[in-house]
Amino acid sequence: MSTPSSLESLIEALRCLPGVGPKSAQRIAYHLMQHDRAGAQRLADALGQALLALRHCRRCNTFTESEICERCLSTRRDAGLLCVVETPVDMNMLEQTHAYSGLYYVLMGRVSPLDGVGPAELHLQRLLARAADGIVREVIIATNFTNEGEATAHALSEMLRNRGLSVSRIARGVPVGGELEFVDSGTLAQALRERRQLAG
Amino acid sequence: MSTPSSLESLIEALRCLPGVGPKSAQRIAYHLMQHDRAGAQRLADALGQALLALRHCRRCNTFTESEICERCLSTRRDAGLLCVVETPVDMNMLEQTHAYSGLYYVLMGRVSPLDGVGPAELHLQRLLARAADGIVREVIIATNFTNEGEATAHALSEMLRNRGLSVSRIARGVPVGGELEFVDSGTLAQALRERRQLAG
Repeated sequence: MSTPSSLESLIEALRCLPGVGPKSAQRIAYHLMQHDRAGAQRLADALGQALLALRHCRRCNTFTESEICERCLSTRRDAGLLCVVETPVDMNMLEQTHAYSGLYYVLMGRVSPLDGVGPAELHLQRLLARAADGIVREVIIATNFTNEGEATAHALSEMLRNRGLSVSRIARGVPVGGELEFVDSGTLAQALRERRQLAG
Repeated sequence: MSTPSSLESLIEALRCLPGVGPKSAQRIAYHLMQHDRAGAQRLADALGQALLALRHCRRCNTFTESEICERCLSTRRDAGLLCVVETPVDMNMLEQTHAYSGLYYVLMGRVSPLDGVGPAELHLQRLLARAADGIVREVIIATNFTNEGEATAHALSEMLRNRGLSVSRIARGVPVGGELEFVDSGTLAQALRERRQLAG
């Protein structure tokens, strides 16, 4: 009886936000309707606008408002290097290092059997086609060092090497500034195993 | 350069959600645009609809789509009892007890000096006018037993008693099913101080 239907619909609709359950949805709805109607209006508009404008870059698969994103169109990037990341956030993190001037491919996910995401669901064929353009000479896999990221990297490197492409993986080890005392033993073991010969 | 403007606007607009900072806003935006466009569309529509339809009941101040909400219009409730709560959620909790058949007044907040919310910002005058309708014989204060809820209860009871109204506060003590071993000492101290004489 008590909750107006438009409020109930809003609470229900808020459940599409990741990590928002029935209780938080209710709290958020009350907050917006009581304290931030201007914000709610902006959010409604921004959602509508993004749904209309955003699509995936035909080359790198990231979000863009054009057919092909600015970065892929840039002539100042090294088109011979293709870095594969899970998400646009990861791409931004790599850009912020200013240590990479090649192009990207954004998977928009990772292999995750538990969530029913296999190589097919990730459309890895699109990446293979992209990497086999004859210009790319090295594919750098920069998926996360989580179980799922590693599984993705493994599947990818198999597929890419079968096509005769040169494949690398970003390095894993003790973080810069890291103290051995505070690094987990898995990382330390990897850092030992993947140690580099120092020039004498 | 890299984030399309409609995506940036969406990330910015998502910050209106309580507890959502820049990182989560980005994560939510990517999630919606990549994995749940239907949900995003529903959310945009629900926000717009709620903004259009929802207002405050002129009598009890809760959310409603009418001038006066169904509960305030009901003839089966005891109009002599007025229960003051902080939020519509609290009202729902009390309704679920089936132990109360009076009417409500929803403050839509609490006195909170740190957030700049005093009695004026809560529009307590509206509650005073509501309670002084000549029909209400007892005002039951059911704000939370937090510092802010207690401050609100204190301010309210002063104002209401000055108007010659009978004011009560819901009981505080050990929860039903609660074991003394696991109750915090503040609650236990209150339960001792506010002990009730048992009929001999």
